[in-house]
Amino acid sequence: MTLNIKPLADRVLIEPQAAETKTASGIIIPETAKEKPQRGKVVAVGNGKKKHTMTVKVGDIVLYGKFSGTELKYEENDYLIMREDDILAIV
Amino acid sequence: MTLNIKPLADRVLIEPQAAETKTASGIIIPETAKEKPQRGKVVAVGNGKKKHTMTVKVGDIVLYGKFSGTELKYEENDYLIMREDDILAIV
Amino acid sequence: MTLNIKPLADRVLIEPQAAETKTASGIIIPETAKEKPQRGKVVAVGNGKKKHTMTVKVGDIVLYGKFSGTELKYEENDYLIMREDDILAIV
Amino acid sequence: MTLNIKPLADRVLIEPQAAETKTASGIIIPETAKEKPQRGKVVAVGNGKKKHTMTVKVGDIVLYGKFSGTELKYEENDYLIMREDDILAIV
Amino acid sequence: MTLNIKPLADRVLIEPQAAETKTASGIIIPETAKEKPQRGKVVAVGNGKKKHTMTVKVGDIVLYGKFSGTELKYEENDYLIMREDDILAIV
Amino acid sequence: MTLNIKPLADRVLIEPQAAETKTASGIIIPETAKEKPQRGKVVAVGNGKKKHTMTVKVGDIVLYGKFSGTELKYEENDYLIMREDDILAIV
Amino acid sequence: MTLNIKPLADRVLIEPQAAETKTASGIIIPETAKEKPQRGKVVAVGNGKKKHTMTVKVGDIVLYGKFSGTELKYEENDYLIMREDDILAIV
Repeated sequence: MTLNIKPLADRVLIEPQAAETKTASGIIIPETAKEKPQRGKVVAVGNGKKKHTMTVKVGDIVLYGKFSGTELKYEENDYLIMREDDILAIV
Repeated sequence: MTLNIKPLADRVLIEPQAAETKTASGIIIPETAKEKPQRGKVVAVGNGKKKHTMTVKVGDIVLYGKFSGTELKYEENDYLIMREDDILAIV
Repeated sequence: MTLNIKPLADRVLIEPQAAETKTASGIIIPETAKEKPQRGKVVAVGNGKKKHTMTVKVGDIVLYGKFSGTELKYEENDYLIMREDDILAIV
Repeated sequence: MTLNIKPLADRVLIEPQAAETKTASGIIIPETAKEKPQRGKVVAVGNGKKKHTMTVKVGDIVLYGKFSGTELKYEENDYLIMREDDILAIV
Repeated sequence: MTLNIKPLADRVLIEPQAAETKTASGIIIPETAKEKPQRGKVVAVGNGKKKHTMTVKVGDIVLYGKFSGTELKYEENDYLIMREDDILAIV
Repeated sequence: MTLNIKPLADRVLIEPQAAETKTASGIIIPETAKEKPQRGKVVAVGNGKKKHTMTVKVGDIVLYGKFSGTELKYEENDYLIMREDDILAIV
Repeated sequence: MTLNIKPLADRVLIEPQAAETKTASGIIIPETAKEKPQRGKVVAVGNGKKKHTMTVKVGDIVLYGKFSGTELKYEENDYLIMREDDILAIV
């Protein structure tokens, strides 16, 4: 299923993911849903701006601050759309 | 019917639309009107600025933040006028 | 009667107008005066700035936000003076 | 009597004037002193800045916002000193 | 007595002065000390910055806003140190 | 064990360290954990920006302000991610 | 004893000093410790930035505002670290 949303300029559309914590031994412990996740998958990327070439690409798993971005509901799903500058890291 | 409004500089005139949510199977469920729509049709576009070439065009369906833009009533209809930079994505 | 006010830089002098709403059939319904008008006629235009060439001209009917500009009383009339960037659209 | 104050950079020294309202027929009605005047005579002008050439000159009657500038008492008189950018128009 | 303080960058060291008001006839009436003076003598000047060449010089009497600058006590005296841009005029 | 996080742009990932205070004689006294540490080890560094070349490198021990950065939990550990400009010094 | 801290960019590490007031006759009167000192010795200096060449050097006695800088405890001593732009003057 393709997603028909094109973020404008330097924006990135993210599908938030419940974080899983993986211990050193490899056992995966799903994090309790107490906190709004700060981790998500990039599902669409804008074309950037004259002074901002995009770094992240569709499929990247990214980390972002707790209050970053604007929530968007689209075709029954919840997304976050934010400027690439609000993305902290790629994991 | 043509609309006789010319947004200045990098502004865009938008006709807000009640969002419809379409499920994977294609069934359309009109969203209840609890929330101010964050989706609209572009009806007029400014000429841009020296450092801002316009991306959206008349007819585009766009998404924007809940509190973006200025409300304008013109010939019995309600519009929103906002800078293109406040538009989050084209759908 | 000529108006002897020269707005400085990128400012525009506007004579606010009570908005009229014209239906599709052409019938004109004067809007009740409940709201401060957001529509006016440009009566004087500044010379612009090095990085801002003026777009509006004397006689244009423009739309602006509810709280834009500074009120000025001059020769018994009320005007608004604002930067061109506060003008939303020409109608 | 010459005034020995040299405003710095893009500043202008203004002697506030009680506004007079002149009707179309030329009759002058002094405005009641209820409001702080927004009109004054330029009495001294700075040398400008690298990116700001001065427009107003000594003797110009100018309009400015109600809360613009810094009040200065000098040799028994009250003046306002403000950046040229706070001046709205020359009348 | 020389003053051994070198203001950094575009800063100016000022010795505040109780303002004297001189009437047209030349009689000097010392202003009561009700207000913090807005007038002082420049006692030291920084070297400026790449984009800011200094205008005032040691010995100039300057006017400044009521809340400008940082108070400094040095060798029993009170001074004000402020950026040149906070100085309103030279008198 | 390698850490699979790539900070974006001019960001740095830091593993906070409980500060040890070393006296002049060389005796190490672990600081009580009353305060959030302001000291950490750099564990990952972004690629910088066009106008910001990175200075710190992986392994550097850095000092930062008490409220700098965003906390991130990743694979059971707590990290801080901040812009390089929020790092005060390398020790 | 050498100090092993390297301030980043345009930052300066300062060892605050209790101010001494020296009268004209040369008698030194230690200031009571009522106020947080606004005077200190530069003990380490960053490399500056592309647009900011450092002016102060190690050993300079500098003056700074009451609330400038970030406090740092390092090897039993208290320091302040601040941007050079927060330093008011060299004495």
